[in-house]
Amino acid sequence: MSIAISEIFGPTIQGEGALVGVPTVFVRTGGCDFRCSWCDTLYAVEPRFKADWKPMGAGAILAEVNRLSGGRPLLVTLSGGNPALQPLDELLALGHGQGYTFAMETQGSKAQAWFGMLDHLTLSPKPPSSGMAFNRERFEACLAAGGDAQISLKLVIADEADYRWARALADDYPQLPLYLQPCNPAPATPEQPERETDTQELNARLRWLVDRVTGDRWYRARVLPQLHVLIWNNERGV
Amino acid sequence: MSIAISEIFGPTIQGEGALVGVPTVFVRTGGCDFRCSWCDTLYAVEPRFKADWKPMGAGAILAEVNRLSGGRPLLVTLSGGNPALQPLDELLALGHGQGYTFAMETQGSKAQAWFGMLDHLTLSPKPPSSGMAFNRERFEACLAAGGDAQISLKLVIADEADYRWARALADDYPQLPLYLQPCNPAPATPEQPERETDTQELNARLRWLVDRVTGDRWYRARVLPQLHVLIWNNERGV
Repeated sequence: MSIAISEIFGPTIQGEGALVGVPTVFVRTGGCDFRCSWCDTLYAVEPRFKADWKPMGAGAILAEVNRLSGGRPLLVTLSGGNPALQPLDELLALGHGQGYTFAMETQGSKAQAWFGMLDHLTLSPKPPSSGMAFNRERFEACLAAGGDAQISLKLVIADEADYRWARALADDYPQLPLYLQPCNPAPATPEQPERETDTQELNARLRWLVDRVTGDRWYRARVLPQLHVLIWNNERGV
Repeated sequence: MSIAISEIFGPTIQGEGALVGVPTVFVRTGGCDFRCSWCDTLYAVEPRFKADWKPMGAGAILAEVNRLSGGRPLLVTLSGGNPALQPLDELLALGHGQGYTFAMETQGSKAQAWFGMLDHLTLSPKPPSSGMAFNRERFEACLAAGGDAQISLKLVIADEADYRWARALADDYPQLPLYLQPCNPAPATPEQPERETDTQELNARLRWLVDRVTGDRWYRARVLPQLHVLIWNNERGV
């Protein structure tokens, strides 16, 4: 079964969440069931870019990962778009056989039986500012499908309403390691691929989020920026 | 037994290493057996600041931590100077009794039996650019004393010589989670407490380190900046 691939790049470091700083190759799939207002990867989301997504088999994807990694197994990060829309079980089986480990990030809108084959699963349901609705039933189906994967919850926070939503949601899943991430105030877009992020505003949001979390004594929440945005300023392919 | 305290502050987030992003209160002890060339906390290191270090008992320290945390247990980070020079066992016992957890960072130059009471122990032996010598016997005594604590290795990298030293050292301890951290090119000093860090140079060092690690296929090394330096720009007490 073929997988819609937007880009494969790396090795670089993971810039977000539980595996921040870990060397990884990114496999980005094309196509998404969401359209978040502040999406920073619209080239892997909007149907008008469909022609840019290459259908690839698991073997061809792994061959490219192997070329980039120099044949030394590392963490492969499956991102999108929503990678949960793709048939990734064969890639996982093939990659594991060669010593690779796999992390995937998804919004939790579609569960697949193969989630349980992942080493790490980041569920990142979208907050009110995204314009997308949260579907608890689907989210919990994803959680259940995760099985033995290391599951963490990563919530993007753009404003006070998002923060309150995140607090309530996280309270319902006390068993999940929790990461809060300030929303990039100036993501690159297909129209402005070279757009520089507003580092000052990003830092202000981060400081606000730290103050909010510590002020509420919400010590379970881990606060992390998108490191790659701070380091590479929205650049693609790093 | 009294403990020499330079400062107690927080809650803020941990800016470095394995616990990056975790809300924590910092307890910084005064006094150090090292004097690294690029030390960013000389006010807790140089004997000329000794009069600023307050001798406090474990109960008084914990009372201050409790005041800052609002009485809700969180991670307490023991830093310095070199906190391993202090008698911290009573603080650890008392704090654990109230639900606190403890992380400590030390260069690994002095082992104490109470290291085994820590929840997290970061060993951060200093690279050649620090001007300090590495003593393997003492480092391994610290490692052994760590017992059941979660131990990680955090190495600061200022240049190519440091990088090569780090590679060789880390290879000898394959069991330890490994964090590489680019050296702050412009740390605050007692003479320039308001010094702004050189963010561009810091990012350049970080990019260089990511390139070096991925170029060498050294996928075990996790690369992280000092987040607090990026967010708060050398400011003290955050």
